[in-house]
Amino acid sequence: MAVQTAASTTDSTTVDLGSAAALSCRECGHRVPLGPVFACEECFGPLEIAYDFSAYEPEDLRKRIEAGPANIWRYAPLLPVPADVADKPNINPGWTKLVKADNLARELGVTGGLYVKDDSGNPTHSFKDRVVAQALEAARVFGFTTLSCSSTGNLAGAVGAAAARAGFRSCVFIPHDLEQGKVVMAAIYGGELVGIEGNYDDVNRFCSELIGDPAGEGWGFVNVNLRPYYAEGSKTLAYEICEQLGWKLPDQLVIPIASGSQLTKIDKGLQELIKIGLVEDKPYKIFGAQAEGCSPVSVAYKAGHDVVRPQKPNTIAKSLAIGNPADGPYVLDIARRTGGAVEDVNDEQVVDAIKLLARTEGIFAETAGGVTVGVTKKLLENGVLDPSLTTVVLNTGDGLKTLDAVAGTGLTATIRPNLESFREAGLA
Amino acid sequence: MAVQTAASTTDSTTVDLGSAAALSCRECGHRVPLGPVFACEECFGPLEIAYDFSAYEPEDLRKRIEAGPANIWRYAPLLPVPADVADKPNINPGWTKLVKADNLARELGVTGGLYVKDDSGNPTHSFKDRVVAQALEAARVFGFTTLSCSSTGNLAGAVGAAAARAGFRSCVFIPHDLEQGKVVMAAIYGGELVGIEGNYDDVNRFCSELIGDPAGEGWGFVNVNLRPYYAEGSKTLAYEICEQLGWKLPDQLVIPIASGSQLTKIDKGLQELIKIGLVEDKPYKIFGAQAEGCSPVSVAYKAGHDVVRPQKPNTIAKSLAIGNPADGPYVLDIARRTGGAVEDVNDEQVVDAIKLLARTEGIFAETAGGVTVGVTKKLLENGVLDPSLTTVVLNTGDGLKTLDAVAGTGLTATIRPNLESFREAGLA
Repeated sequence: MAVQTAASTTDSTTVDLGSAAALSCRECGHRVPLGPVFACEECFGPLEIAYDFSAYEPEDLRKRIEAGPANIWRYAPLLPVPADVADKPNINPGWTKLVKADNLARELGVTGGLYVKDDSGNPTHSFKDRVVAQALEAARVFGFTTLSCSSTGNLAGAVGAAAARAGFRSCVFIPHDLEQGKVVMAAIYGGELVGIEGNYDDVNRFCSELIGDPAGEGWGFVNVNLRPYYAEGSKTLAYEICEQLGWKLPDQLVIPIASGSQLTKIDKGLQELIKIGLVEDKPYKIFGAQAEGCSPVSVAYKAGHDVVRPQKPNTIAKSLAIGNPADGPYVLDIARRTGGAVEDVNDEQVVDAIKLLARTEGIFAETAGGVTVGVTKKLLENGVLDPSLTTVVLNTGDGLKTLDAVAGTGLTATIRPNLESFREAGLA
Repeated sequence: MAVQTAASTTDSTTVDLGSAAALSCRECGHRVPLGPVFACEECFGPLEIAYDFSAYEPEDLRKRIEAGPANIWRYAPLLPVPADVADKPNINPGWTKLVKADNLARELGVTGGLYVKDDSGNPTHSFKDRVVAQALEAARVFGFTTLSCSSTGNLAGAVGAAAARAGFRSCVFIPHDLEQGKVVMAAIYGGELVGIEGNYDDVNRFCSELIGDPAGEGWGFVNVNLRPYYAEGSKTLAYEICEQLGWKLPDQLVIPIASGSQLTKIDKGLQELIKIGLVEDKPYKIFGAQAEGCSPVSVAYKAGHDVVRPQKPNTIAKSLAIGNPADGPYVLDIARRTGGAVEDVNDEQVVDAIKLLARTEGIFAETAGGVTVGVTKKLLENGVLDPSLTTVVLNTGDGLKTLDAVAGTGLTATIRPNLESFREAGLA
């Protein structure tokens, strides 16, 4: 079942994944039926979902979405899921807050409207719940009974939680020497949590081996053989942002880059809304954000390259620390095509940005959120972002998961329990 | 401004807090105008909000609520807030998931429908965001410029975040030797975080001193001089549960007890919905849940007492560790009046229940959630809870904040990065 390429070249399929019609190669356009495959049999390019949205009338679809549940399944007609998806047991992420960040806007000098899309509100407090929820539905349709992944943190928790809710077995692979907090968060859901004696690359390599082996039969690796479905979950960020803006495209978006998948799928989601007629067509710019200690896409962007040279990551923004991002070239293309850019900030700027966002908006972001806010600040200072335009910045995770990054933050005063001591400390 | 009792006895007031009409003493019924006061000038009983809901027609109100925002402000007509509350900067908590817990129901033998109201989805991941959001609106109306509280954790983070968003100064008092994680979470929002050399009782005593001193002028202590407003935030749990059940009362609710305020206000909220006609009147039972190491209300309930004898807390459920719960007698009254009960579980049962909920439903609860789930299990085993009735269990916080309680949870296996090692570990 878990094969890497598909034999058939027809679009005919017996699986019900809504308006998803086929898998299509991003490189050569070759189409294969929907299945648990991720690489093109012709050119080994990445497969992605091709849809048939031709039956949708924009006003009807808009009403149907607005009457839907307060989670990603309101967009079921635009996702590779069965029509009755909302009735099946899943973690039901999404419909997170789009916070109008007026205090932050004032500090940064943004006048056109600044918003933070805060995905720390998801069930396991990161955007990974969106992609895992999609992969889970695909796993169900394809008859997998075990949900798996390689991970260093957020993904492990999201897979463990979703599998538990949906009644799947889960088996998650992580480097054996991860921080205790991440291990607990991944283990609490009761699935198998296997430590691999090696680093994250070793974990990844082992998972690829397992997919090709009979032992991996019946296993859905959310970020490998279910990747085409998994990745579509990121489109829901685009849909929600536009709906929350009153069915309008923002002018500028600042999006973190790990593998680059999220950024490319947000662009795909925006393009779909335009094509279907749910939003008015107008230009928008997409900006990619990296940490300086893992900035292969930013470096390539600045050098004018089309290819991305891998880096060995060294940054506190560990959820973005992918040194060889699979979708890097597509990110470069989107940033250039839309008139955006790719920028990076150093770890000190990441920490400052986490504190800035918390102090101005009461949002405690993961290091990845520090990267996007920090890059937003830098791009404004450099005149690359236009402060007079509507700008949306993504926070994809929760500060509680990366406490170490801001461990220096603490008491502003220590006093004895009396008013005299209170006055002496200058607090009155 | 921050006086403890009010001089006037009329209901006339110039503040706009919606349908809130006056403050009324819970003990003697004495009414005073809305103001930053919390104790009755006649009998020193606790003051609570009295409303005028006479203008509401149920169908109109229901439609108005359903068309409202996806947060607690959809219930603005039933809360002590101005009509335009949703337009003001606040943390906007609520409308958290009511999870149909079919897996947990199966394990516990519940056939009548089991639901978990999961308040870990709030902005700072605990139900405290609900009460702080209310207190903030009262603080704004009464002209306070500093938001304050005494806290050992969840409340500190909620106050810090809400003050940041709303542009208030914040000054939060905690024991100086709290765990680093809680300190970081409280400090990150940039307000004053003052460590008191002493225990939580010393912190509380100092705060009471400060309220009576000119140095406390202009300070709104959310859980002291703003307590009548603050406490009303818990009513929104009752509203949401009923609306999410299709405007129906549940048959049984299991609610944690710290001060007891939350339980009493949920009962108040249910009663309001019945009186206004938003739900059909029928009996419901309220069950209180405590940890054995801090079980003053449970002990009093079982002994048939009307008064609660204080305890010195010693439990891992620190967010419930109030040894002298102010609303304990009211909780006893509600449990007995509705045909419910109060029960407690020990720390081992709390940890088991945290794991049970995670394993069955993918919800990682704080220790307080372990208490309610553990008590639910115990009450079912003892035949006190009826498994054939619709039951709602509250999870009021997030497991990420109490990682220490489940620190023993970890890897299920460690292997070398190859298939042979994988097979040897029996994972195939």
